[in-house]
Amino acid sequence: MSLLDLILTRRSIRKYEDKDIPEEVLEQILETGRQAPSAVNRQPIQFVVVNDRDILKNLCDNLIARFVKRAPLAIVGCANTKSLLTGKWAVIDATIAMQNMVIAALTFGIGSCWIGACNEKKIKELLKIPDKLKIVAVLTFGYPAEQPKQRKKKPFEEMFSFNSY
Amino acid sequence: MSLLDLILTRRSIRKYEDKDIPEEVLEQILETGRQAPSAVNRQPIQFVVVNDRDILKNLCDNLIARFVKRAPLAIVGCANTKSLLTGKWAVIDATIAMQNMVIAALTFGIGSCWIGACNEKKIKELLKIPDKLKIVAVLTFGYPAEQPKQRKKKPFEEMFSFNSY
Repeated sequence: MSLLDLILTRRSIRKYEDKDIPEEVLEQILETGRQAPSAVNRQPIQFVVVNDRDILKNLCDNLIARFVKRAPLAIVGCANTKSLLTGKWAVIDATIAMQNMVIAALTFGIGSCWIGACNEKKIKELLKIPDKLKIVAVLTFGYPAEQPKQRKKKPFEEMFSFNSY
Repeated sequence: MSLLDLILTRRSIRKYEDKDIPEEVLEQILETGRQAPSAVNRQPIQFVVVNDRDILKNLCDNLIARFVKRAPLAIVGCANTKSLLTGKWAVIDATIAMQNMVIAALTFGIGSCWIGACNEKKIKELLKIPDKLKIVAVLTFGYPAEQPKQRKKKPFEEMFSFNSY
């Protein structure tokens, strides 16, 4: 499948096979996050990669929106929104890096789900994330155990206009 | 080049050839933005695509950070951060869609640059964007007229930790 088709047909995956992501695959996924652009290249972003089964269970069962079960991997995206000069774009910086990782994972047949609704305070306690960082979102990853249908999207004309709103 | 290598070797392009992006290519790039995931699939995002030469000149010369010259295309990403239920994630939603478009463009040999620093008020006037929308960022696109070197990134160990910050 072409890269373009991979992106176009990507669906959020919420059910995963009970199969770990190989370490060398994970490293390549993470590397696409590390190489992402950021405002003035300051990179006020950090990621906690969770692959410990007990921590994942606690995270998925209690601390993020309930729709994901038993993901073999989660990545907690953090942004330093107080960072000098570019903190106001730190959430954007983190999101760009995370979407790179989402698309990179696709090339290995690995699905993912963006989760915004999470208990930020308790996740910070669990993972010892300092208060100064904002949790942007949590991504779960794994080999798909479902094939969700295409979601309905806004018509092209509602999403895009040309040269004027 | 593999999709993974495309993402890994992507650089921000600030100088573009004087060559328009064909309409059918643009449509495919935009479609990857339209198909992007968003919180609860609510899509509180809209994009103004700028390809009019005069408007582009005004935008690039006066209203965004000065480092881009003569881009043949710009996309202004807007988020409705007041949107019911999911407005707090609207900036993330817009950023995900925009990074889809950045990577889709790469597959056509088209470079891009994320620009956060812009005169939001004047861009809104120029493009008749309503006040209720927030401008998330501007992306410029075009065929590269430069080959920037790799930027230095944080070491892997500073960017990622495992199971605890």
